Amino acid sequence: MTDDRRAAGTPTLEDVARAAGVSRATVSRVINGVRNVDPVIQEAVRQAVSVTGYTPNRAARSLVTRRADAVALVVSGAGIEPEAAPEASGNASEAGTSGGGNSFTAQVFADPFFGRVVTGVVNYLRPRGMHPVLMFAESSRAREEVVAYLRQGSADGALVVSTHAEDPLPALIAEAGLAAVLFARPARPVPVSYVDLAHQDGARLAAEHLLGRGCRRTATISGPLDVPAGQARLTGFRDTMARHGHPYIPVVEGQFTQESGEAAMERLLAEHPDLDGVFAANDLMALGACHVLREHGRSVPGDVAVVGFDDSSAALACRPPLTTVRQPVEGMAAEMTRLLLDRLARPDGPVTSVIFEPELVVRGSA
Amino acid sequence: MTDDRRAAGTPTLEDVARAAGVSRATVSRVINGVRNVDPVIQEAVRQAVSVTGYTPNRAARSLVTRRADAVALVVSGAGIEPEAAPEASGNASEAGTSGGGNSFTAQVFADPFFGRVVTGVVNYLRPRGMHPVLMFAESSRAREEVVAYLRQGSADGALVVSTHAEDPLPALIAEAGLAAVLFARPARPVPVSYVDLAHQDGARLAAEHLLGRGCRRTATISGPLDVPAGQARLTGFRDTMARHGHPYIPVVEGQFTQESGEAAMERLLAEHPDLDGVFAANDLMALGACHVLREHGRSVPGDVAVVGFDDSSAALACRPPLTTVRQPVEGMAAEMTRLLLDRLARPDGPVTSVIFEPELVVRGSA
Repeated sequence: MTDDRRAAGTPTLEDVARAAGVSRATVSRVINGVRNVDPVIQEAVRQAVSVTGYTPNRAARSLVTRRADAVALVVSGAGIEPEAAPEASGNASEAGTSGGGNSFTAQVFADPFFGRVVTGVVNYLRPRGMHPVLMFAESSRAREEVVAYLRQGSADGALVVSTHAEDPLPALIAEAGLAAVLFARPARPVPVSYVDLAHQDGARLAAEHLLGRGCRRTATISGPLDVPAGQARLTGFRDTMARHGHPYIPVVEGQFTQESGEAAMERLLAEHPDLDGVFAANDLMALGACHVLREHGRSVPGDVAVVGFDDSSAALACRPPLTTVRQPVEGMAAEMTRLLLDRLARPDGPVTSVIFEPELVVRGSA
Repeated sequence: MTDDRRAAGTPTLEDVARAAGVSRATVSRVINGVRNVDPVIQEAVRQAVSVTGYTPNRAARSLVTRRADAVALVVSGAGIEPEAAPEASGNASEAGTSGGGNSFTAQVFADPFFGRVVTGVVNYLRPRGMHPVLMFAESSRAREEVVAYLRQGSADGALVVSTHAEDPLPALIAEAGLAAVLFARPARPVPVSYVDLAHQDGARLAAEHLLGRGCRRTATISGPLDVPAGQARLTGFRDTMARHGHPYIPVVEGQFTQESGEAAMERLLAEHPDLDGVFAANDLMALGACHVLREHGRSVPGDVAVVGFDDSSAALACRPPLTTVRQPVEGMAAEMTRLLLDRLARPDGPVTSVIFEPELVVRGSA
């Protein structure tokens, strides 16, 4: 680094020392915030820094500010499974994985949702000269690494997106007294701020749209029911249907993946061959449902109307394009980031939540 | 940070100072690598660090090692367009973008390819205790920020994935003498190491497969022809066809997006209604082509066989699933990362390239 700087003509520590008329070590001590330096010398060094245009190494500045000026974007996964995953993914670099792969990271990015989260985070951080450190935490060891990384000050705080309800990371972070904001309310109460969507309102919009089209035999493919969002979307859909005189709505639980949407649709069609409307709790499952309906000779939306949830890029990849409940993911991710920077600026600020309103986007599928 | 550490019982600088029998300032100076400290005291501090289990702040360690122990993963974009993009994306955080959005970051992650790159990079870095800093560089200002970030030592080097041929970033990085490795050969020669695929060999596999199925009237949807990969895949396809007695292959140029694949397929069908085979230079365009073929009542692969390229998750999302040329993206991204860490360990090592061999994955579409 030092050589590169010199080659490019960037001012060095030596230049500052020369301009201030002091030793290199003294400049270093002033920049590092060592206390017992004569105030007059401190001022001379500061002026020399300003005159030469010297940019102190980020690490040096961090020592003074006690801030890394970096935040971690953590995609946090499932289970209590012990140390298997990191080893496995270590090997995957050699083995490669087919069709987008089945490692945790590959799964994460197969869902267009995460790209939208990254977009929102980057849009908020970048004008502030910051960039997210991307981390994955799908095993106990990986979670420990995230906590250690934050503890040692490599990042000032974490933006946490959990893919599973039983994710222990939010609690670990809260116990360690580290700064974090969550995307979506955790399944178990944890004193950490979060952003979330009014999921029930979104499901209500889907139900009202299907009813408005004249659907009378609707079914739903829910998300995982141990996830608050999965639960809330199902409740919202059922409640609205009940309020309109439809007390019984067949449900098959999916896992927010395209494959689980296909399997669920197969089951619903077998058990309820006369259905005329389907609400899938996310777009990937709706996409899978449309594939299966077409394979069974049902037209969408003619025979069966399909509504998804998220308005992810899967909604546009589908034929016909999906009518869906738009989750403003980019805006939510930006707000999550704003809350974290707020918290870093005022560590004693209150734990808070910000809930976004969904809206219906009508396209071809319903 | 200091308060959190204390609360959690983590050893602090004070604990080290007490154990070593010296002042806090002295401990700090030893850890920061200040030279004029008595060697006996230095040794005492080191022993106290070891006894207390104190983890020096990452910033402090960086000052000693002159390494950030971080690498940037830069997704680098197009044009010479000036400062528009960062402003625009700054606003996008409020406005939100529909259907996966149209900002640069949203576009990037709409392509499953980038998720696979991230997977390969993370798989290689994580067992080494490192995590990528995610950066985007689609405008001149964003590129300057990347170069400044590397210069000031916030990251030790960059992994660069360019989405456009005219990307000036590799040259800027080379001129600044910064460490970097590229994913794919740049359009113009730059003295920077890269990994790449034998694209012509991949296109040859696609051509031989279509010929082997009995296709006699094939066409191709190429990638952007100013991108080396786009050019090489077209050349490889045409050369193989010519060698088998098919001198004329209709071509429509696409942009590696689903929409461009749809538009290209519409044109090919209009101009060559009797075609029986299509090679699309990536899976997203092949997916778009399959949609259009179906809309025109052509069955895939019965009437028209379709071969894609990449083996991305779009290949599995397609109905029928795509026969495609597998690009081992995760392995290539891991190798790119290995080359960068090598370069950081031996800054005077030679600039090098590693070329991967593709393979054909046969599924339903051809």
